[in-house]
Amino acid sequence: MQTITIIGAGMMGSALAFPARENGNDVRLVGTPLDREIIETCRETGRHPKFNKDFPAGIGYYQIEELETALRCADFIICGVSSFGVDWFRDEILPVLPEKVPVISVTKGLMDTPDGRLLTYPDLWQAKLDELGKHIPLCAIGGPCTSYELVAHDQTEVSFCGKDMDVLRRIKAAMATDYYHISLTTDVVGVESAVALKNGFALGIALTIGLNQKAFGMDSELHYNSQAAAFAEAVREMRKLLILQGAEDFNNLVLGAGDLYVTVYGGRTRLVGILLGRGLTIDEAKQELAGVTLESLVVAGRVARALRIKAQRGEADLKDYPLLLHIDEIITDGKPVNIPWEAFTFEQA
Amino acid sequence: MQTITIIGAGMMGSALAFPARENGNDVRLVGTPLDREIIETCRETGRHPKFNKDFPAGIGYYQIEELETALRCADFIICGVSSFGVDWFRDEILPVLPEKVPVISVTKGLMDTPDGRLLTYPDLWQAKLDELGKHIPLCAIGGPCTSYELVAHDQTEVSFCGKDMDVLRRIKAAMATDYYHISLTTDVVGVESAVALKNGFALGIALTIGLNQKAFGMDSELHYNSQAAAFAEAVREMRKLLILQGAEDFNNLVLGAGDLYVTVYGGRTRLVGILLGRGLTIDEAKQELAGVTLESLVVAGRVARALRIKAQRGEADLKDYPLLLHIDEIITDGKPVNIPWEAFTFEQA
Repeated sequence: MQTITIIGAGMMGSALAFPARENGNDVRLVGTPLDREIIETCRETGRHPKFNKDFPAGIGYYQIEELETALRCADFIICGVSSFGVDWFRDEILPVLPEKVPVISVTKGLMDTPDGRLLTYPDLWQAKLDELGKHIPLCAIGGPCTSYELVAHDQTEVSFCGKDMDVLRRIKAAMATDYYHISLTTDVVGVESAVALKNGFALGIALTIGLNQKAFGMDSELHYNSQAAAFAEAVREMRKLLILQGAEDFNNLVLGAGDLYVTVYGGRTRLVGILLGRGLTIDEAKQELAGVTLESLVVAGRVARALRIKAQRGEADLKDYPLLLHIDEIITDGKPVNIPWEAFTFEQA
Repeated sequence: MQTITIIGAGMMGSALAFPARENGNDVRLVGTPLDREIIETCRETGRHPKFNKDFPAGIGYYQIEELETALRCADFIICGVSSFGVDWFRDEILPVLPEKVPVISVTKGLMDTPDGRLLTYPDLWQAKLDELGKHIPLCAIGGPCTSYELVAHDQTEVSFCGKDMDVLRRIKAAMATDYYHISLTTDVVGVESAVALKNGFALGIALTIGLNQKAFGMDSELHYNSQAAAFAEAVREMRKLLILQGAEDFNNLVLGAGDLYVTVYGGRTRLVGILLGRGLTIDEAKQELAGVTLESLVVAGRVARALRIKAQRGEADLKDYPLLLHIDEIITDGKPVNIPWEAFTFEQA
């Protein structure tokens, strides 16, 4: 039995309470300042407002003011904030976390820098820890896992990454179940880059669904040739980006590809892509989704911006990224969808 | 304008008549002895009985007895037989084909040998040509392309492979359209191995759909975590098999992964996997599909058989292929579905 404090009561952080608690651990779910009503609901009903299933009995629910209590004797901490909470976690939470207690994060994303680098969130947080002179092992979770399917006990395979394999093994011992299967790797940049990149590309694949609805009618059957063509190009471009990240590794690429596979079928990124494919402008598509976080748009824009800087310096060739750059011009410049299919072909002798 | 003779009036061969004829080529569609009624229907209605759209005007339809006429002045020949027609094509057709006129094949599959090798169909046919002393450039088509979506003009990306890049360029010039996009490569073994392997693995992914129907009810929503987990493992195992084939190359792997993506969503392989996942035995599943060709079952069994021989010789480690070997024990030995999820995890320091 370990004591696990989850910070962030969004869907993904909350979903991880299921395997954690089902394994008999002491589990404490702490809401961010934005999660106040969620925590109240959990206390009243024993169920997250977005799930269709009760939490396992015995989880403690905490408002952010009760963080100190929730952190007492924690063996490790799960950071479940969305990518829009990354700065908050760095500035408000890292300073009050106990020394040496590992943090494992499910937040997916990359941050670009003015000189064209793409930093992982563990990179960003490590800089803050260094500044504070604190020692906290930072780990992360990547891989194809939607929260509601984890809650439903669908068979799920993810990777935990971090610099210290022993820490990872201890966290895996607490979290692994007969439906939650965990690989371990010390390649943090690789895992985090792969699973962040897929968000931008999932949008590109979803475009094809909307394009087909426009071409063949809203009730037409799904077509998969064009989805697969965009999927294959996405994997090709993701590999080149992983090389730029210094993290080319087959397992990272497969992790990103698997995550891409899930993301195309789930939720908001799919919906935006379909709306754009049907012919809506990016502003119209955003309006349809008012109030919903669109991490995919943020990631695609950041990666494209970094790539353009790298290209100016001769460190990347923009011709290698026709799909990503098209996604960027749709979402950043408001251009219409016109996928450059022929640019995806090649000759190889 | 080129003259193109398609031999085999199944769905894939017939679908290729669309881009071929729309580009203004002289196109001749020749049925195998099994396609007699199809050719009659095409002549009477101008439509393939399995398509929901007429052929472009001007295609010539030929019964097998008229093959000689259909081959006159052909610039290249498309072989559209199914994998069950490979021997027929080798024994009956190769001997009567004209010298030096290229053949490009859409037939996907691999043939195992008693010493554990996996031969491509171009390999098999080349042996026959050598025996006959004939010189015919053998090319092939691989990649994610379902016939009815090609007919519908869904955007499609494939690879043509063959030893002579100039021959490939000429065929591409005849076939490429604004919806049919073609990469060219001289790596025949790589392309043919990748697109054959995916057939076996598609079954493995489809199993998860049936398993979820059993666990959550027939009307439950699709779950993608387990699909993605099986997809990722499939890609990992496909890569190891491509290494064994001496054809590890990133583009081959992406081609196979894209093809896998399509196959999971289309047709018979998906259906068998779902039935098995629901709990039917392989014999019951086959009965449900009476009369339908199951290339996926054939490929998975052949690859597993070759792998076991390679393992006996110390040339492969069966531990690297938990998904493929489980598929094989289901379809060959009639074992129940019990996906070894934890065997898909790893530690990487």
